Amino acid sequence: MADENKADKLSTLGEFAFIDTISARLDGSADVLLGIGDDCAATTIPAGEVLLTSKDLLIEDVHFKRQWCSMSELGHKSAAVNLSDIAAMGGKPRHCFLGLGLPPQCRVDEVDAFIAAFIATMSAAGCQLAGGDTCASRAGLLISVTVHGSGVASRLCRRDGAAVGDDIYVSGTIGDSAVALYLLQHEQAVPPHLLRRHHRPEARLALGAQLAGVASAMIDVSDGLCADLGHILRRSRLGAEIDSSLVPLSQPLRAWLEQHPEQRQLALNGGEDYELLFTAAPAARAAVQQAAATAHTPISRIGTTTATPGLTILTAAGVSRRDNPTGFNHFAR
Amino acid sequence: MADENKADKLSTLGEFAFIDTISARLDGSADVLLGIGDDCAATTIPAGEVLLTSKDLLIEDVHFKRQWCSMSELGHKSAAVNLSDIAAMGGKPRHCFLGLGLPPQCRVDEVDAFIAAFIATMSAAGCQLAGGDTCASRAGLLISVTVHGSGVASRLCRRDGAAVGDDIYVSGTIGDSAVALYLLQHEQAVPPHLLRRHHRPEARLALGAQLAGVASAMIDVSDGLCADLGHILRRSRLGAEIDSSLVPLSQPLRAWLEQHPEQRQLALNGGEDYELLFTAAPAARAAVQQAAATAHTPISRIGTTTATPGLTILTAAGVSRRDNPTGFNHFAR
Repeated sequence: MADENKADKLSTLGEFAFIDTISARLDGSADVLLGIGDDCAATTIPAGEVLLTSKDLLIEDVHFKRQWCSMSELGHKSAAVNLSDIAAMGGKPRHCFLGLGLPPQCRVDEVDAFIAAFIATMSAAGCQLAGGDTCASRAGLLISVTVHGSGVASRLCRRDGAAVGDDIYVSGTIGDSAVALYLLQHEQAVPPHLLRRHHRPEARLALGAQLAGVASAMIDVSDGLCADLGHILRRSRLGAEIDSSLVPLSQPLRAWLEQHPEQRQLALNGGEDYELLFTAAPAARAAVQQAAATAHTPISRIGTTTATPGLTILTAAGVSRRDNPTGFNHFAR
Repeated sequence: MADENKADKLSTLGEFAFIDTISARLDGSADVLLGIGDDCAATTIPAGEVLLTSKDLLIEDVHFKRQWCSMSELGHKSAAVNLSDIAAMGGKPRHCFLGLGLPPQCRVDEVDAFIAAFIATMSAAGCQLAGGDTCASRAGLLISVTVHGSGVASRLCRRDGAAVGDDIYVSGTIGDSAVALYLLQHEQAVPPHLLRRHHRPEARLALGAQLAGVASAMIDVSDGLCADLGHILRRSRLGAEIDSSLVPLSQPLRAWLEQHPEQRQLALNGGEDYELLFTAAPAARAAVQQAAATAHTPISRIGTTTATPGLTILTAAGVSRRDNPTGFNHFAR
């Protein structure tokens, strides 16, 4: 029968049959009273906690290229980058909503692969798909994700909480994803570790939850280490000094940089690491180390906040200063 | 200065300056602890109520055409159609999130007009803009709205609550918007009332709130009267009979239909009315009338639910039956 043919076009399957295939993948969750299939979803969050909401638009040929990744990788990444925003507040993911604008020639098996991976990554984080919107797109694949989490208001890790003299930390390693993107854009071979870090980022949820009430400010590294530190500094009205030799790089990235030393700044400026960048008072060093150990997540201390505005970067070549470490301008051409 | 030039391109203004102009428009709200400018928004809903969430994607040349409406009308409509989903649950709007994919050639004054109208319509409904996402689009204007509301779980008006023998009601008038769209598509003059109903729909929030705990099932009319009734019937596992002579039509629409009697079915089948379609037990007739009077919203009783599946429509020409009153297939070409 036509509806058994996984290579079918969505235009044959139809919108409501398609939504039924999504609903069939879901297990249900006690805090989703009403999920897919009504005008709104009805959900709850734990008493005494506040609702955290993040929303992201991912647009084909702006945020991703279909020829560089599988639909499964894209489904995973669409989930992970939104979960990362919950991690960056020190929150716990709860429910999510998926909006898809689908080109009519999109095959059912492709969309199935996307949705299966999206739901798997969200479910592994305890985050239930509770609704969304599907429609046709004449302009490539459009992905719109809204994720809900929760946390205790007094323990949230905001961007504006850093104080003068706080330590600056970052989790994991930095730069793998940006170098992978650079190599994809230049049609060069990409070392497998870097490619995996670009296509399959992991939200640092365990670390984020452990840092709630410990970190003075936190953000996830999506625009690039310097740019995202710039967001914390701007909101906290501070400056910072970081030592670039302390910025953690993976062994495969270090090996690649030995061959391409002129690309070293990609690690500091390239985005999409989805590591956590946070500040904490020097008095909290033991608590920070305990949080990282409990979360089984490596962290590195890379600098200090200062009362003087601007970002000072110590490098082997000397000192570089940026008065306005702004992020990627998404509207620049 | 360049940033005072309202006809500037967004690519000149930059993403962060643009977000600052949005933040400057907001008044703040006690239940938005943390709004625009962090990884997540942090918000609350009243104790004892559940969170209602609706999410909609609006895509240029799929859902709207820029040459048919102003950016201000588009901003209003993007807000209203999402508020309508909260109304259809009997809920109260609380906060909202706006994702915008903006073509780089988009002018600042155009986006300003959109956002001013979006915020004005949301604010008038008590709904505070609390976050979102802005990015470049290479494929026309993309609008992604997430709206949060709240309501008491036991009083929500779901789609699946209708019982056999319930009365079927619809608010306001039906068909104005669909006929306006038909005339726009055929490049014909559109009577002003119909055009206004197409570009400036009003979410029936007061009526929806009054019907919480009174209506047995409710939906807003976005896909068309028959299709949306079909959603209630499918979820409630029922059929229905409606009398097409009881379907409320505006005076301007009746005047137009006298000249174009062959288009009468547009009223029943065309979408985007954003009226409330609901069922209620015959024993609740007085309560329904009281709800409508309190909300100052006209309603019409147009039929009855039946145990026999399918939709029977009584017309002047006789009886028509639809076994499967499915909605618009958004993936059909």
